[in-house]
Amino acid sequence: MRGFYPGRFQPFHGGHRRFVERIADEVDEVVVGVGSAQASHTGRNPFTAGERVTMAHRALADLETTTYVVSIEDVGQHALWPAHVRTQCPRFEVVYTNNPMVERVCEEDGLDVSGVELIDRDRYNGTDVRRRMVEGDTWRDRVPEATVDVVEEVDGVKRLRRVVEHGQHSVDGSGDDSH
Amino acid sequence: MRGFYPGRFQPFHGGHRRFVERIADEVDEVVVGVGSAQASHTGRNPFTAGERVTMAHRALADLETTTYVVSIEDVGQHALWPAHVRTQCPRFEVVYTNNPMVERVCEEDGLDVSGVELIDRDRYNGTDVRRRMVEGDTWRDRVPEATVDVVEEVDGVKRLRRVVEHGQHSVDGSGDDSH
Amino acid sequence: MRGFYPGRFQPFHGGHRRFVERIADEVDEVVVGVGSAQASHTGRNPFTAGERVTMAHRALADLETTTYVVSIEDVGQHALWPAHVRTQCPRFEVVYTNNPMVERVCEEDGLDVSGVELIDRDRYNGTDVRRRMVEGDTWRDRVPEATVDVVEEVDGVKRLRRVVEHGQHSVDGSGDDSH
Amino acid sequence: MRGFYPGRFQPFHGGHRRFVERIADEVDEVVVGVGSAQASHTGRNPFTAGERVTMAHRALADLETTTYVVSIEDVGQHALWPAHVRTQCPRFEVVYTNNPMVERVCEEDGLDVSGVELIDRDRYNGTDVRRRMVEGDTWRDRVPEATVDVVEEVDGVKRLRRVVEHGQHSVDGSGDDSH
Amino acid sequence: MRGFYPGRFQPFHGGHRRFVERIADEVDEVVVGVGSAQASHTGRNPFTAGERVTMAHRALADLETTTYVVSIEDVGQHALWPAHVRTQCPRFEVVYTNNPMVERVCEEDGLDVSGVELIDRDRYNGTDVRRRMVEGDTWRDRVPEATVDVVEEVDGVKRLRRVVEHGQHSVDGSGDDSH
Amino acid sequence: MRGFYPGRFQPFHGGHRRFVERIADEVDEVVVGVGSAQASHTGRNPFTAGERVTMAHRALADLETTTYVVSIEDVGQHALWPAHVRTQCPRFEVVYTNNPMVERVCEEDGLDVSGVELIDRDRYNGTDVRRRMVEGDTWRDRVPEATVDVVEEVDGVKRLRRVVEHGQHSVDGSGDDSH
Repeated sequence: MRGFYPGRFQPFHGGHRRFVERIADEVDEVVVGVGSAQASHTGRNPFTAGERVTMAHRALADLETTTYVVSIEDVGQHALWPAHVRTQCPRFEVVYTNNPMVERVCEEDGLDVSGVELIDRDRYNGTDVRRRMVEGDTWRDRVPEATVDVVEEVDGVKRLRRVVEHGQHSVDGSGDDSH
Repeated sequence: MRGFYPGRFQPFHGGHRRFVERIADEVDEVVVGVGSAQASHTGRNPFTAGERVTMAHRALADLETTTYVVSIEDVGQHALWPAHVRTQCPRFEVVYTNNPMVERVCEEDGLDVSGVELIDRDRYNGTDVRRRMVEGDTWRDRVPEATVDVVEEVDGVKRLRRVVEHGQHSVDGSGDDSH
Repeated sequence: MRGFYPGRFQPFHGGHRRFVERIADEVDEVVVGVGSAQASHTGRNPFTAGERVTMAHRALADLETTTYVVSIEDVGQHALWPAHVRTQCPRFEVVYTNNPMVERVCEEDGLDVSGVELIDRDRYNGTDVRRRMVEGDTWRDRVPEATVDVVEEVDGVKRLRRVVEHGQHSVDGSGDDSH
Repeated sequence: MRGFYPGRFQPFHGGHRRFVERIADEVDEVVVGVGSAQASHTGRNPFTAGERVTMAHRALADLETTTYVVSIEDVGQHALWPAHVRTQCPRFEVVYTNNPMVERVCEEDGLDVSGVELIDRDRYNGTDVRRRMVEGDTWRDRVPEATVDVVEEVDGVKRLRRVVEHGQHSVDGSGDDSH
Repeated sequence: MRGFYPGRFQPFHGGHRRFVERIADEVDEVVVGVGSAQASHTGRNPFTAGERVTMAHRALADLETTTYVVSIEDVGQHALWPAHVRTQCPRFEVVYTNNPMVERVCEEDGLDVSGVELIDRDRYNGTDVRRRMVEGDTWRDRVPEATVDVVEEVDGVKRLRRVVEHGQHSVDGSGDDSH
Repeated sequence: MRGFYPGRFQPFHGGHRRFVERIADEVDEVVVGVGSAQASHTGRNPFTAGERVTMAHRALADLETTTYVVSIEDVGQHALWPAHVRTQCPRFEVVYTNNPMVERVCEEDGLDVSGVELIDRDRYNGTDVRRRMVEGDTWRDRVPEATVDVVEEVDGVKRLRRVVEHGQHSVDGSGDDSH
């Protein structure tokens, strides 16, 4: 049996790693779905799919359970998401999520959904990790070493600060509207 | 003469029905345009185009005036909307709307626009109907029976509550960011 | 050497004109990139690409330096923007911008970026010009004559007011949700 | 029970009408799906969705069985088509088709598929009807009166001839490459 | 009065230049529309929009008539093309084309269309110019100097040969299927 | 150093496996890019990205060199492909390909490209493997066991035959045009 664990993994942190360990006890193989694969360079989605795949792949390399790290571009329509995911992933039997929307559309699609028990949420929280990066707080102890490596390789903290700094600007229509 | 009446119809309620009755007195045939046809499973757009077409089709079945219920996907660019609508609908001569944007782009496109007089707005209001569904307030008396049937068939109140419950989550990039 | 100056130019105002004059001293040819070319008829993007191209083209017609006015549709993904721009513009060597996002993605792409010194920002500011149009304040003295001509030709102030008036309405899914 | 009958209906002809009559004996309600709704003005897809919806709606108006005529834009990915159709149509239990691709993707999606017995295929054949229009052969006796009306209203034969005449030209990139 | 002259300009050749000269006698300003702006690196569309804009802009720089060179991405639906063009171009009153499709959709949209008289077609023909590039035949004498400059700057003949050489390969799904 | 090896892998066959072995000798890590990830259910692209990722992942599981299997949706514009690939993949230094288009766009983008020496091409050839599936010829001896498993799990030979059988039909606009 395979389990599917979707997330944005911005970035892949210690809670994600621990959760994969847990579901690895319940299923034969794990499919980690890196969602919003087309997004990057925003405050909420600073890292590219390639960077996130690298983080997850390396951070899970020592697991004995076979793990697929698959990127999934947004399909733009909630109701098509489950069908889209099925085309992009190895066949799976159960979805692990505690996102109510994911849960709902998967259930309407006939998929089995299993709740995700949050692990040490105060410590492992993507929004908080990004805030720490922006504000210069400690964050390295909350993510796997692989994530630290990738973030440093791409100068990710600087990137995140720049995109957050002037969040009102968009690169598309890249103008300085205030000029 | 045909009249075009666009809306999102989330859901199709009693005010919509009454308004179609009224314009049926002014035109020979009515085209009901179910807009944002690609959207569903959000707080503002809980129902699929198929569900909304079913509601409207059944709720208007007893009208003597010929009525077309046509779904219209968003085209993504305001200025292209009138041209897009013309390709998707039976030919029409007048647009019924009180949305200032619709009015403006239709006028720039050379279409005749007729204002929509709001009917008992306190009672018939899509936002309010959805709020009532979420909060467990009465809503069945504000929509046609056909709408009640469709909402119950798809367990729509539960769906709406789930998507509203954790509105901050998106299904695309479906991650549990908080994990 | 060519310089690339991206913006949304909603509308093209006096600060834009002055800035092009300045970079015309530094480079041989100037490429003015009219971004978000697909957008129009919103409060933030009232004018079409065609209208903005006309404004800029005419307002810069008397410059001695060769100037290209190029429209650029959004590509939807920040990280692809520099590659997209390169396909749409004459080859350029330096980007003039003070949008931190544009700066960041261009730097990651290996492009040279030069900051834009704001010119009389209190006076020349797109957001403020649009606010003045909406509120009936004076705005004609802050934009080139070409911009005045285009705005009047398309009855642009009325358009802007209409789209701002009921900003909560979208033309796609063009419904009057409140009905 | 509802049955779903997809087609492009370019144009809606007598065989389509007869087939709907037949499945109307087997199901309670019929959903006619007008596919490739975004396409028009090509040799293979001359008529807009609006025109085709009008043809089918009128040609089926006298049926006693409730019939929904629903337009369906292409989703661009075969494997997503069944999920897309489900969002755009009233809920249905069986698909009527003899297109092997439709049959296959619907079966993989778990839908019931029923073959379509061709009715007088020599006479009722969309490709042949379009050929007759182009070549000035008789075609009116092979389509419902509603189709004749719509084709004449939009000067459809002339349109078809023009798009076929210089099929090598595309309107996008609308150039006369030979110039 | 402005005239609109659409084309793909792959590449901009002597016949294009001469034709602009001619319509410059009939209108006050000319809008040259560089179509399929998103396309490049194919046998039929080797040059990017930026390269084609550069060719046309320079080749027409000495004209006394004001000329706008505007790029236009494909909109993907023939019936929306005229509306799309209007958003991307300075307002125009007449379309110059001899592409029957362009003529048809523009006429249905209510635009005036004027035929393009082919100028020395044996000599000035985009398909033939590209064939000459591929086969090493003379081509420089059939295009303006600006086109020669751009083609050489981007090593365009080599590019064209490479994309033609193995036309069966696509870069998307960029695989060597034969391996 | 990482090497990037793009392909469609329809299906992943023995030549692909052998080639990865070879480049594993030249680089530290290999990124296998499964292109046209959105495509499936056509004669040329019968298998979904998920199925192809499963084939490649399993077929390469015993390699000592770290191997990333990354799916890549088409971006639709040749000139954007290298930038798109960089966002979707772990950072790489060299591209292995013998597709002239890929080679060209990568070179224009400044990437290092290394040719792919074809391995026993008569035997290992995607087009031929698919032909064998369709015609009932032997194919299992030309692909890794993992590919056999996936093809059988999804009844892939039947799928391929169905989509090839009536190639003239498309599922979008899913009609039986001949009816």
